[in-house]
Amino acid sequence: MSILYYCAGDTDDAIYNEIKRKLPTHTITKWPDCPDKSRVTMAIVWQPPTDFFDSLSSLKHVLSIAAGVDHLLNHPGLPEHVDVIRLTDAGMSGPMADYVLYGVLHAQRQMCALNTAQRQQQWQHELKPHSASKMHVGILGAGELGLMAAKKLLVNHYTVSCWSRSKKELRNITHFVGKDGLDEMLSTTNVLVCLLPLTKDTSGIINAALLAKLPSQAFVINAGRGDHLDEQALLDALDSGQLSGALLDVFNTEPLPASHAFWTHPQVVVTPHVAAPTQAEGAVTQLVDSVISLEKGVNPRGWVDRTQGY
Amino acid sequence: MSILYYCAGDTDDAIYNEIKRKLPTHTITKWPDCPDKSRVTMAIVWQPPTDFFDSLSSLKHVLSIAAGVDHLLNHPGLPEHVDVIRLTDAGMSGPMADYVLYGVLHAQRQMCALNTAQRQQQWQHELKPHSASKMHVGILGAGELGLMAAKKLLVNHYTVSCWSRSKKELRNITHFVGKDGLDEMLSTTNVLVCLLPLTKDTSGIINAALLAKLPSQAFVINAGRGDHLDEQALLDALDSGQLSGALLDVFNTEPLPASHAFWTHPQVVVTPHVAAPTQAEGAVTQLVDSVISLEKGVNPRGWVDRTQGY
Repeated sequence: MSILYYCAGDTDDAIYNEIKRKLPTHTITKWPDCPDKSRVTMAIVWQPPTDFFDSLSSLKHVLSIAAGVDHLLNHPGLPEHVDVIRLTDAGMSGPMADYVLYGVLHAQRQMCALNTAQRQQQWQHELKPHSASKMHVGILGAGELGLMAAKKLLVNHYTVSCWSRSKKELRNITHFVGKDGLDEMLSTTNVLVCLLPLTKDTSGIINAALLAKLPSQAFVINAGRGDHLDEQALLDALDSGQLSGALLDVFNTEPLPASHAFWTHPQVVVTPHVAAPTQAEGAVTQLVDSVISLEKGVNPRGWVDRTQGY
Repeated sequence: MSILYYCAGDTDDAIYNEIKRKLPTHTITKWPDCPDKSRVTMAIVWQPPTDFFDSLSSLKHVLSIAAGVDHLLNHPGLPEHVDVIRLTDAGMSGPMADYVLYGVLHAQRQMCALNTAQRQQQWQHELKPHSASKMHVGILGAGELGLMAAKKLLVNHYTVSCWSRSKKELRNITHFVGKDGLDEMLSTTNVLVCLLPLTKDTSGIINAALLAKLPSQAFVINAGRGDHLDEQALLDALDSGQLSGALLDVFNTEPLPASHAFWTHPQVVVTPHVAAPTQAEGAVTQLVDSVISLEKGVNPRGWVDRTQGY
């Protein structure tokens, strides 16, 4: 048995080298190097190429080097019977919470309008900050990332709600469930944050109909996946004044094409999928723990329900 | 006896009207209306005009509608013998702490470089955030505004130091005093925050020599007064790479002249003196309390030591 590794866009092999160091007796190779594909039982991957799964006839487990597994579940070559395991935190929730807090402050302090005023060399002293207590943040998603962001916003005195599929008891956070719950949350949300997993149910969830349910001049932060957002609907809502601005880290196409309207829109802040980079140290720890658990026949944290998509 | 009021740039008279409502039996007029200047014993002012103090022969107390009193102590007409009282908080410290936190996150997340990349339509995925624990914030000033900002940064897991004239015992905050203390603090400060009062000792404190003592690629937040900063020294330090960016709310000349280099500098975020606008409600409460205390012969909070300048 052996482990096959592939990480798209990885430049320094830090995670690969560290996994090899921590599992010295395992046979671990980096795709496409693989002496005997029929002996591979486990794969550790981020965005594997189309033919990655070809000839892996003994494959049982695929470990995602990310919290999201849409890159795997939408892969045409992923065998039906294999188990998929995702990262559940690995040090990403702290940076993600910082990113969300930055976006909320950007909205609260009217920084989109102030940045526009600066470009026009205009001193607009009337652009004063909103009160923190009047900022209602609604988070789509109540997983580890969503809840860590919610807690960070709470200690900074914002009003926080979450929405997710199944009911949870959360202290000091109003939790909404289902379609009616979503509409109720949206009606009072000044800052909408998307931290959902990307599934068939959540794809395109931030569309024109949803944006119309927010109060006027709301702000959108998308740090989930690009395909949660109907990008044209967002542009339309910005141009109509329904939205005051957006902070976007993920896009329908990445890297964001040079011709895309987001780059030059005065109310859109673009960041290049850096909200919560996988932290090598935390990722390695969880990946190695998962390998050892799986070999013992124990389901590790982050086991993905393929019918739910996360 | 009567009270004379003047507030530069005030557009809606909210503070004036509320003070009159809360002190219905007092004679309060708005400069230049004043039936008998010789009966005025108290003035409530922000940036009074040059001839404001002329003929106020009975004036005893001047209340500043701001935390800073440089606008008064540098006023050529302010009589030597009058007492000056400043606002000590009045609801400003919360917004100020939010402003500082925004600036620290801007630095941590490399937003100056990311905003430049956006203007150039370049996807620079390598511009990842710094770890919160590696951000050392050094605050010049340990008054109510400085300490509130420090506490806000602490709950968000930053390392925080303060520097001020006199020694204080502060929990979880390293406190530096004196010239040697300043140099020691600067040597490890990634983000320098100025929340000092403007006095003869602090005017121009952020100059080329001080900036050279910071680690390379440091970030500067000035929300004190414009004259704390040598603006050309800041521009030079940005252009040499000694600084990575700056968030500036106050300037040598306000409004910032349209021709000023700050407006168009890619690493400078300009905000138009809105970091902590005086909150009408909190300001009125403290001003009215001060008037009543002074009439009883009791020194109110915010009594200014004119030899120290705050």
